[in-house]
Amino acid sequence: MIFIELDQKINIEMQIECDTAIVTASTASDAPMGRRDRRKAEARQRLLTAAHRLIAENGVPDLRIGDVTDLADLGFGTFYTYFPSKEALIEEVAAEVLAGLAASIGSDALEVADPAEAASASYRRFLRFSRDEPEVARVLVELDRVNAIFELAVKPWAMETLARGQASGRFAVDDLDLAHTSVAGSALAAIRAILAGRVPPGPKTESRGAEMMLRSFGLDTASAQEISRRPLP
Amino acid sequence: MIFIELDQKINIEMQIECDTAIVTASTASDAPMGRRDRRKAEARQRLLTAAHRLIAENGVPDLRIGDVTDLADLGFGTFYTYFPSKEALIEEVAAEVLAGLAASIGSDALEVADPAEAASASYRRFLRFSRDEPEVARVLVELDRVNAIFELAVKPWAMETLARGQASGRFAVDDLDLAHTSVAGSALAAIRAILAGRVPPGPKTESRGAEMMLRSFGLDTASAQEISRRPLP
Repeated sequence: MIFIELDQKINIEMQIECDTAIVTASTASDAPMGRRDRRKAEARQRLLTAAHRLIAENGVPDLRIGDVTDLADLGFGTFYTYFPSKEALIEEVAAEVLAGLAASIGSDALEVADPAEAASASYRRFLRFSRDEPEVARVLVELDRVNAIFELAVKPWAMETLARGQASGRFAVDDLDLAHTSVAGSALAAIRAILAGRVPPGPKTESRGAEMMLRSFGLDTASAQEISRRPLP
Repeated sequence: MIFIELDQKINIEMQIECDTAIVTASTASDAPMGRRDRRKAEARQRLLTAAHRLIAENGVPDLRIGDVTDLADLGFGTFYTYFPSKEALIEEVAAEVLAGLAASIGSDALEVADPAEAASASYRRFLRFSRDEPEVARVLVELDRVNAIFELAVKPWAMETLARGQASGRFAVDDLDLAHTSVAGSALAAIRAILAGRVPPGPKTESRGAEMMLRSFGLDTASAQEISRRPLP
C-alpha cells in the first residue's frame, strides 16, 4: 500500500510555502512562525494525518469528526479552529495526498535513465494508486477542478521527463504542453473508470494504459509493450 | 462556425426520449403529449435556443434572463416556469450542445470508411469546437461531472469506431473501454488547456492531438501524421 509518509509531505509543503513566501515577501509579514503558530500548524497536520488514515481504512461515509479528533489526540471542540467543515478537511486530505504522491512518483522518475521507462512507471503508479487507496482516490476525482489540481501537481516532473525524451530523440512529441495535458487527462479518466468499475483494476490495465501513452509519444508497439510490462523500479 | 441546427437537436432528443419511454413504459403515463404540454416543451426549447445564441455571441457573464425571454418571445415572468435558475438554463444549454455535437460528429464518423481517419476527424472536430464556440465550451468544461457527461455523450460512436478499427486490424487496442476513456479524458483536457491559453488553439494543435491518439492506437508515426493532417471530410 502506498501511504505517503508524513515527513515527506510536510517537507514538500514547507518548500512550496517558502517559495511562495519569497515571491510575496513584500506583502506578507516577515516575522518567523511563533511557538503558538507552530503548535497550531502541528495540530492541524495531526488532524489531516488522522483523517487520511481513517478514510483509507473505512471510507468517507463513515468518517466522524470525533474519531478524527480522538486519533489526533485533540478535543472535539477544537476541530473548527482548524477546518470550517468536515468536507473541507476531506478535500485537503485528498489534495495533500495527491501532492505527496506526485512528488514521490515524480522524483523517482528522475532517477530512471530512460525517459520512456520513467514515463511508463509514473503512469502505472498513478493508476495503481486507485487500487492502493481507493477511498482517497474516490474523494480526489470528485474534487472541484480536480483536472487542474492533478495537472499542476504532476507538471514539474512530467515536463522534465517529456523534455528529456524529446531531447534524446526517444519521444517524437511536437508540443510538450499538449502531451502533458493529454496524458494527465487520460490518466485521471482511467482512474475514474477503474473506480466506477468500467475498466478492470490491476497491473494489466496499468500496463495497457502506459503502452498506449508510450505509443502516443512515438515509440513502436514492440518497445512500448516491452517497457510498459517491466517490473516497476 | 459549428452551430448545431435546432431541428437536428430536437430529433436526437426526441429519439432519446422515445427510447427511454419504451424502457420505462410500465411506470410512466402512456398518454400522448397534450397540446398544453407540447406548447410548454416548445417554449422551453425556445428559451434554450435563445440562451445558446446569446451565450455564443456575448458570453455567459453578460447573459440576462430578460434578454433570453425577449429573444424567445416570452414574458419575463414565465422564465421560472421552465427553469429554476439562470445557472440551470446555462448548464442545460451546454449539455444539449454537447449531445448535439457528439451526435453530429459521431454519425459523420460512421460514414468514413477508414476507422483511423474517422477517429482522427472526430477528435479534431471536438477540439475545433473550443475555437468555434469558446463561450459554450467554457461553460461545458466547468460543469459538474463533465467528464462523465462527455464520455457518455461520445461513447456510442466512439466505441463503434474503435471496434471497427480493432476488427479490421487497423488498431492494436487490447481494452476498448480503456482506450475510449483515455481519449475522451485527453480530448477534454486539451479543450481545457486551449481555453486556458496553455496550448495554442488552431488546426495545428488539433492535428497534433489526433496524431498522438492514432499512435496510441498503434498506427506508425508516418501514417498517423498523414491521416491527422488530411482535410476534414
